[in-house]
Amino acid sequence: MTTTTTRAAGRRAGRRRGAGPAGATSDRAPNYRQLRNPFPIMSVFSDDEAAQIHETALRTLEDLGMKVLLPEARKIYAAAGARVEGEMVFLGREIVQAAVASAPKSIHCRAGAAHRDVILELGALAFQPGAGAPHATDLKRGRRPGSGEDFREYTRISHHYDVFQMMSPSVEPQDIPTPVRHYFTMLAQMELTDKFPFLFARGTPQTLDNFEMLRIARGLSEDAFIQGVHAYTIINTNSPRCLDIPMAQGLIDFARYGQLSIVTPFTLMGAMAPITVAGAITLSHAECLAAITLTQLVRPGAPVCYGTFTSNVDMKSGAPAFGTPGHFQASLAAGQMARMLGLPWRSAAGSASNINDVQAANENQLGLWGCLLAGATVIIHSAGWLEGGLSVSYEKIVTDVEVLNMVAELCAGKKAGTDEIGFANALSHVAPSGHFFSAPQTMERYTTEFYEPVVHDYANFGTWIERGAKDASTRATAVWEAILATQTDFATPPDRLEALRAFIDKRTVEGGAPPES
Amino acid sequence: MTTTTTRAAGRRAGRRRGAGPAGATSDRAPNYRQLRNPFPIMSVFSDDEAAQIHETALRTLEDLGMKVLLPEARKIYAAAGARVEGEMVFLGREIVQAAVASAPKSIHCRAGAAHRDVILELGALAFQPGAGAPHATDLKRGRRPGSGEDFREYTRISHHYDVFQMMSPSVEPQDIPTPVRHYFTMLAQMELTDKFPFLFARGTPQTLDNFEMLRIARGLSEDAFIQGVHAYTIINTNSPRCLDIPMAQGLIDFARYGQLSIVTPFTLMGAMAPITVAGAITLSHAECLAAITLTQLVRPGAPVCYGTFTSNVDMKSGAPAFGTPGHFQASLAAGQMARMLGLPWRSAAGSASNINDVQAANENQLGLWGCLLAGATVIIHSAGWLEGGLSVSYEKIVTDVEVLNMVAELCAGKKAGTDEIGFANALSHVAPSGHFFSAPQTMERYTTEFYEPVVHDYANFGTWIERGAKDASTRATAVWEAILATQTDFATPPDRLEALRAFIDKRTVEGGAPPES
Repeated sequence: MTTTTTRAAGRRAGRRRGAGPAGATSDRAPNYRQLRNPFPIMSVFSDDEAAQIHETALRTLEDLGMKVLLPEARKIYAAAGARVEGEMVFLGREIVQAAVASAPKSIHCRAGAAHRDVILELGALAFQPGAGAPHATDLKRGRRPGSGEDFREYTRISHHYDVFQMMSPSVEPQDIPTPVRHYFTMLAQMELTDKFPFLFARGTPQTLDNFEMLRIARGLSEDAFIQGVHAYTIINTNSPRCLDIPMAQGLIDFARYGQLSIVTPFTLMGAMAPITVAGAITLSHAECLAAITLTQLVRPGAPVCYGTFTSNVDMKSGAPAFGTPGHFQASLAAGQMARMLGLPWRSAAGSASNINDVQAANENQLGLWGCLLAGATVIIHSAGWLEGGLSVSYEKIVTDVEVLNMVAELCAGKKAGTDEIGFANALSHVAPSGHFFSAPQTMERYTTEFYEPVVHDYANFGTWIERGAKDASTRATAVWEAILATQTDFATPPDRLEALRAFIDKRTVEGGAPPES
Repeated sequence: MTTTTTRAAGRRAGRRRGAGPAGATSDRAPNYRQLRNPFPIMSVFSDDEAAQIHETALRTLEDLGMKVLLPEARKIYAAAGARVEGEMVFLGREIVQAAVASAPKSIHCRAGAAHRDVILELGALAFQPGAGAPHATDLKRGRRPGSGEDFREYTRISHHYDVFQMMSPSVEPQDIPTPVRHYFTMLAQMELTDKFPFLFARGTPQTLDNFEMLRIARGLSEDAFIQGVHAYTIINTNSPRCLDIPMAQGLIDFARYGQLSIVTPFTLMGAMAPITVAGAITLSHAECLAAITLTQLVRPGAPVCYGTFTSNVDMKSGAPAFGTPGHFQASLAAGQMARMLGLPWRSAAGSASNINDVQAANENQLGLWGCLLAGATVIIHSAGWLEGGLSVSYEKIVTDVEVLNMVAELCAGKKAGTDEIGFANALSHVAPSGHFFSAPQTMERYTTEFYEPVVHDYANFGTWIERGAKDASTRATAVWEAILATQTDFATPPDRLEALRAFIDKRTVEGGAPPES
């Protein structure tokens, strides 16, 4: 925040140069916490084609079925009237349609502070940093297996930027034993951020531990906890057409306790999904419907989001590609399906590049625009993801935030009233070939009119060379270092943190809770 | 182009690996030559606000006036009823409105070959590489003042990619004396590309030389030349509210000879234009209307495009910034004005970065999306521009082409018919948790379904390290080197080139034609 003193100094400096307000610092305090998507919606298929995809997805569930590995889940489907043969579940459309009808169209997600709450519904827009990476990388320490320290640092960097309204499981802390890892990641989120938290669904024991910890940290009774949405998980089906044990348990547990599942089949066209956008989205849609149905059979009205993450493989190498035309079109197609259901939904950006370079930037932004024009409610992997999710980069999260912040600025729109058009306070003040540096309109607005960049540099070539000719990724190192050098700007009540740590100590002594598989 | 033999080999290799078609090469032959914009149009202002901007622009021309430095232009305005006082021209709205009415809404631009022709009208989409740079830069030779060699090389690289439908004056060949430079750049375009060419309007003598050369190269009579649009120029006003001598001459000469002027005020918010998007676009719109009016007063129906290039300065340094929210919104606003007039129009991407890095990629792509969602007909500086146009980069044109190609792919759309949805030929062929590598749908489509990248690399981290850990910009060097190592794929008839060289020799002996100022 700029003080009045530096503002005045900046203004004086501008006047001294006779060139108006150059040298100004910014007084802007934009609100990136609750965004609405300002971009027009784009479709890739006709309404008839979209209807045919929906119809084929229903037929897929009816005739081809889903393999469901968890007996409890098969029982729930069977009780609703589905035909179950061995591990296969054949789901009639009337069951699916009733589930879609009972799923909430707007979900109030409760964060650690009310100003951090997020409403998920069609038309809203929320960003998550890149998630689920086994490795972390930065230009200081290189690429390494993700550690607890990385998880805590990445949590702090993610917390720092308001444009991430939801936390994500950025990097896997591989040095923390798996039976107690969920204590570590939950404690880190409760200590380091008051944003809407993420929990992995790695089996019922871990999930129930996590719910208990969240109750303690938020100071909620069991009943109050169930009445509000305090955390979310991501449910990946095992495409094609399989729902494994921990994912089915997650759907059931989160629904039962009123917490949010975001269902996201990860379907690579040409590999685990058909090679076409239409075929891949048909498969993804069918799997989504099956998973959403399970949540509603457990508890009608349970919070659940539709989702997709569909891109193509590279046909030369078989490797996943992101930020491609196919990825973009798959987002558009998924948006058409989500709007047909009326549900909030998640899509994804991301990059396959191995380094935070031009490819990484271009892939991420192209994928992002696909999500934005598709009307996605939540955009995951919107920053920091490299190698198709095998690493998160400390520099890339910073350089991607620059883009997300600018998108958030676009959400705010612009006015064109009398003052903004400025015939009286700008246009008529300046002679032909003159400049507007000292026009009244400029003087009124120069500290607030423009977005102020995080890492982009507008120095001219000579100055840039003098300053060490650093590219944006190199400059980003200093940005995340500065974030980590500052204190967290909020405090979870110490008594709750103490109770949380006591719970963790007790459960750790008991052996924790190994993940299910 | 892939031969049948390599296709078959690729398919066999895929079968050998038992992993379907990975290892495939592409059979795709997409047509990027005539694009239609598939993106939904976005507005930043309400219709009322846009109407008020138009109204204020008309009032600006009536009450504040334009300074017009060329006496001939002032006479033309005066003859139409404008009030002229000294160098100031005050333009009544009825004159402007009549001019807009007579300006063509669709312009058929004739290239050296019919398949290269471009139709400019609302809904069409054409890209130009970055233009007008005094310097060239690449990773092999570094940054240097632009030379004739650079101009010819950049012309060849621009020609190579179909996604550039129009040529641009990429880099200034500073080693060619100014009285004969226009011979050099015209000869280079006639020898090295059959795309729609660009001519600078640097005074009537150079323009008439250029028209004559174009007639010779295209084999056209004087009359046939005037009947078709064979070249274009860019008209930059001297914002605010000044039209200088060469620009006014250009508008008059191009209109008189039936050639295309693209009017593009270059207005930096907070410097040569009001600090607000609304104010800057009001000024830009007024200047555009004045310039368009001049063309129509010279020759009603003369081809002319509306245009804008509006971004903001950085308030810390006073330096121009590109790819900002303000830049994006200015494109949207200009699109609203262009649609009000019904005219094809030009907007611009671009980057302020000093190197082809993440900033350069993100700025360029954000600016590009502003143009695309604004419904721009022509997007200049869509590739290769660095330092706010002070240099063009050989690597950046390649890495930006990757994005433009992907946008061109999106123009083609996707189908979702029975074959694409693929219940019979894909979905029902694959068991739960299986893969689609060998599904019939995959086998039919794997050489054509996906976009094949120019420079993006999908190798995994280990392979990428083994191959030298090259970032995208470094890899792009090999791409442009390969283009320059190949022959141009078309031939201007030798007798015409001979006649063109004879004309140039004659005019060079006569001293050429110095630029006007």
